[in-house]
Amino acid sequence: MTGPGTPLPLPSTRPSRAVVEPLAPLIDDGRYPAKGSIDEPIEVLADVFTDGHDHVAAAVRFRHEDDDEWAEAPMTHLGNDRHRATVTPDRLGPWHVDIVAWVDHFDTQRDGIVKKTEAGLDVRVELDTVADLLRRMRAGAGPGDAETIDGLLDACSRNDPRPFADPDLVRLSWRTHPRSPAVGLDRPLVVFVDRRRARFSAWYELFPRSAGEPDSHGTLRDVEAQLDRIAGMGFDVVYLPPVHPIGTSHRKGRNNSLVPEPTDVGSPWAIGDPTGGHTAVHPDLGTVDDVRDLATACAGRGMDLALDLAFQCSPDHPWVVEHPEWFRHRADGSIQYAENPPKKYQDIYPIDFESEDWANLWLALHDVVRFWADVGVRVFRVDNPHTKSFAFWEWLMASFRRTDPDVIFLAEAFTRPRVMERLGKLGFHQSYTYFTWRTDPAELRQYFSQLATRTADYMRPNPWPNTPDILHAQLQHGGRPAFIVRAVLASMLAANWGVYGPAYELQEGRAVGEGSEEYLDSEKYQIRAWDLDREDSLAPLLTLLNEIRSSLPALQQDRTLRFHRCDHPAMLAWSKTDPAGIGDPVLVVVAADPGRDAAGEIDVDWAQLGLRYDAEYELTDHLGGGRYTWHGARNFVHLSPRGLPAHVFTVSGPAAEHPFTPPVERGRGLT
Amino acid sequence: MTGPGTPLPLPSTRPSRAVVEPLAPLIDDGRYPAKGSIDEPIEVLADVFTDGHDHVAAAVRFRHEDDDEWAEAPMTHLGNDRHRATVTPDRLGPWHVDIVAWVDHFDTQRDGIVKKTEAGLDVRVELDTVADLLRRMRAGAGPGDAETIDGLLDACSRNDPRPFADPDLVRLSWRTHPRSPAVGLDRPLVVFVDRRRARFSAWYELFPRSAGEPDSHGTLRDVEAQLDRIAGMGFDVVYLPPVHPIGTSHRKGRNNSLVPEPTDVGSPWAIGDPTGGHTAVHPDLGTVDDVRDLATACAGRGMDLALDLAFQCSPDHPWVVEHPEWFRHRADGSIQYAENPPKKYQDIYPIDFESEDWANLWLALHDVVRFWADVGVRVFRVDNPHTKSFAFWEWLMASFRRTDPDVIFLAEAFTRPRVMERLGKLGFHQSYTYFTWRTDPAELRQYFSQLATRTADYMRPNPWPNTPDILHAQLQHGGRPAFIVRAVLASMLAANWGVYGPAYELQEGRAVGEGSEEYLDSEKYQIRAWDLDREDSLAPLLTLLNEIRSSLPALQQDRTLRFHRCDHPAMLAWSKTDPAGIGDPVLVVVAADPGRDAAGEIDVDWAQLGLRYDAEYELTDHLGGGRYTWHGARNFVHLSPRGLPAHVFTVSGPAAEHPFTPPVERGRGLT
Repeated sequence: MTGPGTPLPLPSTRPSRAVVEPLAPLIDDGRYPAKGSIDEPIEVLADVFTDGHDHVAAAVRFRHEDDDEWAEAPMTHLGNDRHRATVTPDRLGPWHVDIVAWVDHFDTQRDGIVKKTEAGLDVRVELDTVADLLRRMRAGAGPGDAETIDGLLDACSRNDPRPFADPDLVRLSWRTHPRSPAVGLDRPLVVFVDRRRARFSAWYELFPRSAGEPDSHGTLRDVEAQLDRIAGMGFDVVYLPPVHPIGTSHRKGRNNSLVPEPTDVGSPWAIGDPTGGHTAVHPDLGTVDDVRDLATACAGRGMDLALDLAFQCSPDHPWVVEHPEWFRHRADGSIQYAENPPKKYQDIYPIDFESEDWANLWLALHDVVRFWADVGVRVFRVDNPHTKSFAFWEWLMASFRRTDPDVIFLAEAFTRPRVMERLGKLGFHQSYTYFTWRTDPAELRQYFSQLATRTADYMRPNPWPNTPDILHAQLQHGGRPAFIVRAVLASMLAANWGVYGPAYELQEGRAVGEGSEEYLDSEKYQIRAWDLDREDSLAPLLTLLNEIRSSLPALQQDRTLRFHRCDHPAMLAWSKTDPAGIGDPVLVVVAADPGRDAAGEIDVDWAQLGLRYDAEYELTDHLGGGRYTWHGARNFVHLSPRGLPAHVFTVSGPAAEHPFTPPVERGRGLT
Repeated sequence: MTGPGTPLPLPSTRPSRAVVEPLAPLIDDGRYPAKGSIDEPIEVLADVFTDGHDHVAAAVRFRHEDDDEWAEAPMTHLGNDRHRATVTPDRLGPWHVDIVAWVDHFDTQRDGIVKKTEAGLDVRVELDTVADLLRRMRAGAGPGDAETIDGLLDACSRNDPRPFADPDLVRLSWRTHPRSPAVGLDRPLVVFVDRRRARFSAWYELFPRSAGEPDSHGTLRDVEAQLDRIAGMGFDVVYLPPVHPIGTSHRKGRNNSLVPEPTDVGSPWAIGDPTGGHTAVHPDLGTVDDVRDLATACAGRGMDLALDLAFQCSPDHPWVVEHPEWFRHRADGSIQYAENPPKKYQDIYPIDFESEDWANLWLALHDVVRFWADVGVRVFRVDNPHTKSFAFWEWLMASFRRTDPDVIFLAEAFTRPRVMERLGKLGFHQSYTYFTWRTDPAELRQYFSQLATRTADYMRPNPWPNTPDILHAQLQHGGRPAFIVRAVLASMLAANWGVYGPAYELQEGRAVGEGSEEYLDSEKYQIRAWDLDREDSLAPLLTLLNEIRSSLPALQQDRTLRFHRCDHPAMLAWSKTDPAGIGDPVLVVVAADPGRDAAGEIDVDWAQLGLRYDAEYELTDHLGGGRYTWHGARNFVHLSPRGLPAHVFTVSGPAAEHPFTPPVERGRGLT
């Protein structure tokens, strides 16, 4: 029936009066799956309410996509209609999360009986009314609940309202109350559960060609010989720049010279020569079998081997001849080399993702990853993903999440915020960050606060104090204290971190020129000999930092990071708590400016640490050693970058009676 | 093809490299339409970008749902990938808004030519390359563009890069660049365009039974006799409490007495007696035809008549007998009256929206609105919508938006934030607010900032300084200055406002008891005689406030409200600018505490007013009169509630060279 004044069709079934507005985990209202990991609690948040004064009940339902059965967890009301539950996934892959709610007539009536009784009113009719409902609840109740219900029915018949004062009856109602009509989400939320290493990892980067004896070209077997040392420092991802044949056309010489010597080895990122491209191994490094052996050797030590995915070609790459349509051409017939006008990079041909032959191109790139995954590589560092099509990455990530849910991709994108965020949304497991350039304490505080909240459902930060491309001025001029401070910050702020290893251990701080962030004698263009046994190596510090991280669950995730106020502008203090509630809270205090002492009071936020506000609490310093007893919020700290510039405390004390739940600071729940 | 290691199917067509992340207008990612109104610019915001260094172009496409053709407007880049455009709808009903984007190769190449030329590089190949693209652009170009393109091609052939330095060529590219592959939204955004009065209105509430001669029961014809006076004060919605027959069972007496006198008239919200219910008119007030005549008389004065939709019944309502299944029953067979335990409201039966017969119930309620809409009533004030099913309202609002797009519903919900917000989301055109209880200046500032930003796409605030239910303590104790301050605040802060008229004009401040917000001798329970000609009436002030609102477009919408800092804690200053850019900016300064003077400097934010930062500017006070010249940000203001406690300035001065665009402060774009 339609016509002027005719209403729209009615809903097909009686709608529930309860409503659910999901808040987290929710990325662009479900456009992308959120990120989870094995044994990491997923915090589900929603506004749930109904009209009028009736009470609502809400449940989170969750299941692995391969399962048929839903598991269920009750949601807790936090106030102002916000409800919360946590669920902890224990299997890799996509999990579905639904939120259902219904009007809880039993608890509504129970509450009315209590309030009327307290007001001295007769509740005989109310008891008779709730008895009708209790009889319906009894129909499907288990033996224990049936007994409880019988007791309540007995009280109703005796006109005794007292048993209804028990607030725990909400759990009885939960189990036995009829739920129809209930409301659920239009479609379930999706959380893709990655392995633990996607959330918690320590990366060590080295150039295999520098791994051999001085004055020789190192090999993958030389890397294998270093694995015990790297594992001993507590790193668990060994990342190698591209291991493929290197082109000779427009090859760069030492220090990025345009005029190479005949002996110059070239940049590993100029991939491909006539002997092979992205699935070949540079003959001086070894063979595909050596990669397989190295991956196996890493796995034997609890580590992952990470290769570099740099989807670009040297002019000598076989694809340039075999698939010229995969590259953009200029009017003179030449292939368009990489450029950022007026800068030119003639040794690199970018791939044209708008190619008319895009479908074969995408499949070929997929097959590159497939090839190395089949060789045993389960971690990839992706070079400049922000210069390749987002649609391609989304397809590639979804494909590997489906076929190889244990494979991890790290996005090496240093670019604008929205671009980096989108790469996280569409599936990259980890992301490089602006940390490398953030040295101001206030900036660090703001940036890591955002990473722990607004973008936490889709972007896992992996801060690096240095990379072969970036030697920050602070490391050039700050000396050993700068290297110490930056390692402490990266490793303690974030659950994932990494270093360009040999250069960091040995505090390599020489730039190619003033104002440049390029290393002098960069390994990108030449083989370097590193004396890793040097007495001033930072290996012992890196080892200690990784040990602390491994022993403290609070440091193995990022979502609970919260900063505490400090009087001194160069001091930073933050805490992390274990979302599973098992590990101790951690409080880190750092003198963030390697050039000066920081002394002043910090304002400990008890609630964030889960402590009772008026109690003494004990602090154990895992970095410098020592135990302290603090009382009250304000406590004095003096740190000097000439010594150890940080405390890494675990904190113990009487727990707060009402555990603190932080407000929702992500997704569309922002107020 | 599926199997271990097989990738997901490829997209069906070559995907664009451009991406669009919509930001506004966007409510729960499109779950609800946003609100717009005739001639009100819709601000469309999105993050638009592509991979790499290529430039993108973005367009907003929009059309009325009944049209086939899309109109189009280019988006402007604001920085950090955020793009903006405004479109202004001119017809009632649903509008669809799409955002499309594509890679702009012409502008990318143009920019490269300019930069390389500036760097002294040869660009011959680049000019040949762009010429290929220009020839493709010429294919579909109009005569003017073809001429421009020919000129550029000529320059290419002469190896002359200079014409490419013109940044206006982006518009040529806009019109002629091939757009395939382009990206659009998964589904268009929807903006429901209401009539102007939904956005800008002044409500006047009165009880018709008090509109006659003293000691008589007033009628709808008596209301008609007051229309000229009300219109003369500048109000444009005349709102009457329910006009239906009033039940006698459990009727309340004067001052809410449980023991009424036989002559007591009862509460108009106890709707229905054996003679009729929600579609009947109380015989002492008149007839349905009188309602029709009154609506016509209002329309003749440019006003709307608003009736009250109170979906509840007195025990004597015909539905109680005809449709007992529409009510909830107690164990003793009686119908459950309204209650908020331990409080009981035995004169009111709430409707059970979970009734098994919900479908017929919903249709009957629809037909009530249909009935009055057909009588000529186009505005409804909905009583306590938050105690009725959200699903019902969503269906009802959608139905009337479809059949009667000029009908306006005001939600009278005073309840928790999420509940009030949801009523706005699901379609109510206007919403009562917490203003009635917000007297602290800092609270007002925070609350109205939120209303102008976070919730602005779906909730139109309609603040009332008083209602028949709420006589705030400040009005009880603040005397005439309090009434003046609160009227200025409500009428100048919000584009919609209202007063419970006679009581406000005459500054009725007597409560039924200390600590109560109920009026003494409330009109809810008895007829009152109002001497509206009294010399101390606030009618002249209300008239002036409404005149100012009518003359200044900036005050006729809420989205541009921004507060300016004030030194004095009791002083509030805010500005509103006309989004259409026609009317002058308005700056309001108020001494918000009626008990004391406020004197101090205010810190004028030039950028918000669109003024050049270093210029003199002129202020004209439309409330108290007078003209001022200010220079610089900080200016001294002294206001006394004993006189006029406010300035309402229009501001004029040299315009800023770079007009200010405020950051996105709503939807999921929050950073």
